[in-house]
Amino acid sequence: MKSDRMNAFLHDGKSVLLAYDQGLEHGPSTDFNDKNIDPSFVMDLAVRGGFSGVIFQKGVAERFYDGKVPLIVKVNGKSALVKGDPVSRQVCSVEYAISLGAKGIGYTIYLGSEHEATMFREFGRIQEEAHERGLPAIAWVYPRGAAVANDTAKEIVSYASRAALELGADAAKIKYTGDPDSFSWAVKAGAGMKVFMSGGPKAATDEAFLLQVQGAMDAGATGLAVGRNAWQNANPLQIADSLKKVIFERVRVEKILSGNRS
Amino acid sequence: MKSDRMNAFLHDGKSVLLAYDQGLEHGPSTDFNDKNIDPSFVMDLAVRGGFSGVIFQKGVAERFYDGKVPLIVKVNGKSALVKGDPVSRQVCSVEYAISLGAKGIGYTIYLGSEHEATMFREFGRIQEEAHERGLPAIAWVYPRGAAVANDTAKEIVSYASRAALELGADAAKIKYTGDPDSFSWAVKAGAGMKVFMSGGPKAATDEAFLLQVQGAMDAGATGLAVGRNAWQNANPLQIADSLKKVIFERVRVEKILSGNRS
Amino acid sequence: MKSDRMNAFLHDGKSVLLAYDQGLEHGPSTDFNDKNIDPSFVMDLAVRGGFSGVIFQKGVAERFYDGKVPLIVKVNGKSALVKGDPVSRQVCSVEYAISLGAKGIGYTIYLGSEHEATMFREFGRIQEEAHERGLPAIAWVYPRGAAVANDTAKEIVSYASRAALELGADAAKIKYTGDPDSFSWAVKAGAGMKVFMSGGPKAATDEAFLLQVQGAMDAGATGLAVGRNAWQNANPLQIADSLKKVIFERVRVEKILSGNRS
Amino acid sequence: MKSDRMNAFLHDGKSVLLAYDQGLEHGPSTDFNDKNIDPSFVMDLAVRGGFSGVIFQKGVAERFYDGKVPLIVKVNGKSALVKGDPVSRQVCSVEYAISLGAKGIGYTIYLGSEHEATMFREFGRIQEEAHERGLPAIAWVYPRGAAVANDTAKEIVSYASRAALELGADAAKIKYTGDPDSFSWAVKAGAGMKVFMSGGPKAATDEAFLLQVQGAMDAGATGLAVGRNAWQNANPLQIADSLKKVIFERVRVEKILSGNRS
Amino acid sequence: MKSDRMNAFLHDGKSVLLAYDQGLEHGPSTDFNDKNIDPSFVMDLAVRGGFSGVIFQKGVAERFYDGKVPLIVKVNGKSALVKGDPVSRQVCSVEYAISLGAKGIGYTIYLGSEHEATMFREFGRIQEEAHERGLPAIAWVYPRGAAVANDTAKEIVSYASRAALELGADAAKIKYTGDPDSFSWAVKAGAGMKVFMSGGPKAATDEAFLLQVQGAMDAGATGLAVGRNAWQNANPLQIADSLKKVIFERVRVEKILSGNRS
Repeated sequence: MKSDRMNAFLHDGKSVLLAYDQGLEHGPSTDFNDKNIDPSFVMDLAVRGGFSGVIFQKGVAERFYDGKVPLIVKVNGKSALVKGDPVSRQVCSVEYAISLGAKGIGYTIYLGSEHEATMFREFGRIQEEAHERGLPAIAWVYPRGAAVANDTAKEIVSYASRAALELGADAAKIKYTGDPDSFSWAVKAGAGMKVFMSGGPKAATDEAFLLQVQGAMDAGATGLAVGRNAWQNANPLQIADSLKKVIFERVRVEKILSGNRS
Repeated sequence: MKSDRMNAFLHDGKSVLLAYDQGLEHGPSTDFNDKNIDPSFVMDLAVRGGFSGVIFQKGVAERFYDGKVPLIVKVNGKSALVKGDPVSRQVCSVEYAISLGAKGIGYTIYLGSEHEATMFREFGRIQEEAHERGLPAIAWVYPRGAAVANDTAKEIVSYASRAALELGADAAKIKYTGDPDSFSWAVKAGAGMKVFMSGGPKAATDEAFLLQVQGAMDAGATGLAVGRNAWQNANPLQIADSLKKVIFERVRVEKILSGNRS
Repeated sequence: MKSDRMNAFLHDGKSVLLAYDQGLEHGPSTDFNDKNIDPSFVMDLAVRGGFSGVIFQKGVAERFYDGKVPLIVKVNGKSALVKGDPVSRQVCSVEYAISLGAKGIGYTIYLGSEHEATMFREFGRIQEEAHERGLPAIAWVYPRGAAVANDTAKEIVSYASRAALELGADAAKIKYTGDPDSFSWAVKAGAGMKVFMSGGPKAATDEAFLLQVQGAMDAGATGLAVGRNAWQNANPLQIADSLKKVIFERVRVEKILSGNRS
Repeated sequence: MKSDRMNAFLHDGKSVLLAYDQGLEHGPSTDFNDKNIDPSFVMDLAVRGGFSGVIFQKGVAERFYDGKVPLIVKVNGKSALVKGDPVSRQVCSVEYAISLGAKGIGYTIYLGSEHEATMFREFGRIQEEAHERGLPAIAWVYPRGAAVANDTAKEIVSYASRAALELGADAAKIKYTGDPDSFSWAVKAGAGMKVFMSGGPKAATDEAFLLQVQGAMDAGATGLAVGRNAWQNANPLQIADSLKKVIFERVRVEKILSGNRS
Repeated sequence: MKSDRMNAFLHDGKSVLLAYDQGLEHGPSTDFNDKNIDPSFVMDLAVRGGFSGVIFQKGVAERFYDGKVPLIVKVNGKSALVKGDPVSRQVCSVEYAISLGAKGIGYTIYLGSEHEATMFREFGRIQEEAHERGLPAIAWVYPRGAAVANDTAKEIVSYASRAALELGADAAKIKYTGDPDSFSWAVKAGAGMKVFMSGGPKAATDEAFLLQVQGAMDAGATGLAVGRNAWQNANPLQIADSLKKVIFERVRVEKILSGNRS
């Protein structure tokens, strides 16, 4: 029944989501070039790349969402210009997100931030409203604050996963720990909740990135929410293809890359 | 009439509750091993161990609660990563908790925290909503802050109990003071409200833990809310059995242990 | 018409109220002994002592109020464990208080606290809701904060009284200034609003306490809200009797005490 | 149409209002004597002195307003005991004020206070609610805070007036700048909104005060909201009479005083 | 469909708006003279100058808006007297703005301010309410705070534009970067959302100002929201005429000025 809510985004229980809220979270000059600053480019990539879903803020969804892949609307957000422990508040109602075509509701929680309580409470309400309307609530959980020295440590990443589970998320997007063994603990902490590896900044090589994704899948992840490593890639359709092989067919990276090279 | 609200969790006025919200409150790596990280293990223990009730956060309840023992949903929560005086805000509505099968509503109040007023006010509303729906409101009262040097001192523990009574709780979960004499003052301060000893961290030996529980019962407690001392125990069904003997049959610990050994 | 709202608590315009919220405000170990920790003892004293009303928090009212004297529910509260300028928030709705049998609504305002605005605003709403339901709103006004060097000074006590009047209270509970002359200014500042002297900590002797009450009555007070000086008294029914003589019959203290001794 | 809302308080477009909220704002011992501490004295003065309106807090209105002159209820307030940048929150609903007979709603905004945003937002809602019910919203605008070195400077007083206009006030009560020339800039900044000079502390002589009022009227003010300079005056009916001559008949102060002396 | 919402303010997709909220934002003495302190002067200029829209706060709109050009009501505001990171809260409801004749809703967001989250959340609600009523939500986005060293830098201005897009604004008012090349990046970041150059303080010469506007238009802007450079101009109708030539007819500034001189 729980898995039903995520079904729109799953193929045989696996998923690859294309995330594109970096314009707000990082600013256009940090992450974008002349092509990918245009949401049409990313919407197009989501469709042609065969992604399982696309993640937009309300404004981008309202102007560019074309209905061809399932939509997750991120309903909170912040700029990168504010200092101190982060807080991200709701900027889009669940009802409005649904009116834009959303089949999932995304919300970022900065676990450990001095404003954690504000986000816990807000997510609690949004999760209930989403469930009432039959939509999954997907938590981006990013640990921050004085107690978080290393946000890819096994203890921290698994805490992110567990917090999402306990708060009733249908899925969590968390950072990769660096190896399948430690990441599998984070997946276990999720206790059946869908766990998505967060793509993070552009990796040095496709291989490096694909090996991370393979590690997450080996550890039991549901899939990946990828942004920069897809739409910043010189060949985004090829990386999309490789990601689908790693995630859905569980082809080994070594084999994929030798295939790409041949 | 008041006791009616707690009846689902009482047997001849006594009770032993299995608590499992530590994944959120402490993080999965602090308290869990490969077995007890899985909520099924704990749900199963609640049933097979004959517990009077089980305590989950909404997310765990939604995925793992099987209806075989009465459910308390903890409706607020926080992570252990936030520094400073603690505040824990509502993450689950009373209505949502009921939809998950809850027969009781749990809420943590950090008495003495600089955010006490926020939690007092929130608990006040939740208590009324719970009572309107016929459910008991159960207060976890943990004294914190600059004025709390020792949170197991008689004066502090009895204050926790009394605050719960005055705020209209049907039951309070408080720390053990260390001896029946001082704990009986906390029970008296509760003035008929059900008082549960909080299990706390894993005790050095089963005997040490059982003697604490026996002391609380001798002092007039209603029972125990136990987590780590049950699901971290190498033999959780045996400790469950011993606890039931101490709490419901008032068998002396000495006798129980000699029986277990024989 | 205004006085109508307080009528349930008045006898020929005078009143003696029994207050018992110290368990929350001070903690059980500060003020209680084995007898008076039990709310039944105080409820019984209210009835047998012929008090004009009894003051409880919601939790005590729900369990112990027996309907034999009119009830005031204190709808806000705080513990003594929080440091800094005090704030006390609503923990009981007016509707809930009425469902418990309340004929009056009590609320504490810490005048001068840096959180004054929060309490002013909250009292403003509660006062209107109480009046809508035909109940009086009774303000405990306790001056605090950097500008309050001496909270029994004439200027400060009269400010408390006047603030209650201006904010629409039907009655105010304020500290005694120490002499009838200065207290009469506080009564005048109330401009017809009922003024209750606050009993305060246990006085050294009954005589000392009764002389304070006599002074307040001489100054024009409506009466007294007494707690510790009644239920901590070795002979609570006798002090109740003496108080009624001072308040309702205006017998001089000297005469009462000589009578008690004879 | 706008002016319609203030019509109850205008005579040929001019007005003199009697303000009496100093008991809350300054405390009874700062401003009151044995006579004027009694609201009846001020209500009586409002009627016999022929004032265009009287200004009370809810509590005083509820007990003493007699319906013989139009009523403005001040719906926010604070004590003088709180330190730091001032904030004054709503203590009376528009609906409640109307139930007390109010024909106008008064609200204080501390322009420049670090809490300015709170009061702007609150006034914005109150103004709309008042207008919906056909009542004028009258803003007391008092500049405060680090940027306000001199709150009677032309730039500051005109800012107060303009802020009231922009926020939709029907009238503003502002301090006098000291001369008609600079005050006329504040009146111009109000752009047709009614501008009332604030009476302020008791002036050294009647002449000094009347000359200020004459200056404000010369500058285009609608009139005066006076408190202490009326009810602290040894001869309040005479000063009321003089004020009416200055405001409504525009008789010169010199002539009035020579007449009073004769 | 999105562009429909802005249609009332567009002529062939271009627009020049007359802004007049400086009385609140800067104070009347900073920006106004004897003529332009009067809102009638500006309303008249909006009509006779052929502006595409006029921007007022609620109070000015209520008294001076004459319906002859489309109205945008700025629904939040602050004074210039408050220190620290800026916050501007809602002072006018969408419903009230519509009752005044508004065809657009304006809201200022101080991107990067420590209060950013408050404004993001508030704008999120206002945007949805505006859209529900068929009105565009227009975001003034002004970057501020510790991370903003230069608020006309390409990275910062484009961030402002992108934030408005992501939050669902129909149009953004942002500062000019100084050259068309860098401003075109900000327009691109807006991804089709209407981008208005903010007029800013009075330029040294008409030529300097017109060249800025021409640069913005060359970069793809929809137009200009101008205040001081119009109503502070010695010849406001002439500058209005020049602006229309630059914006709607795309006549080069050089040609316009030679025409004006001839």
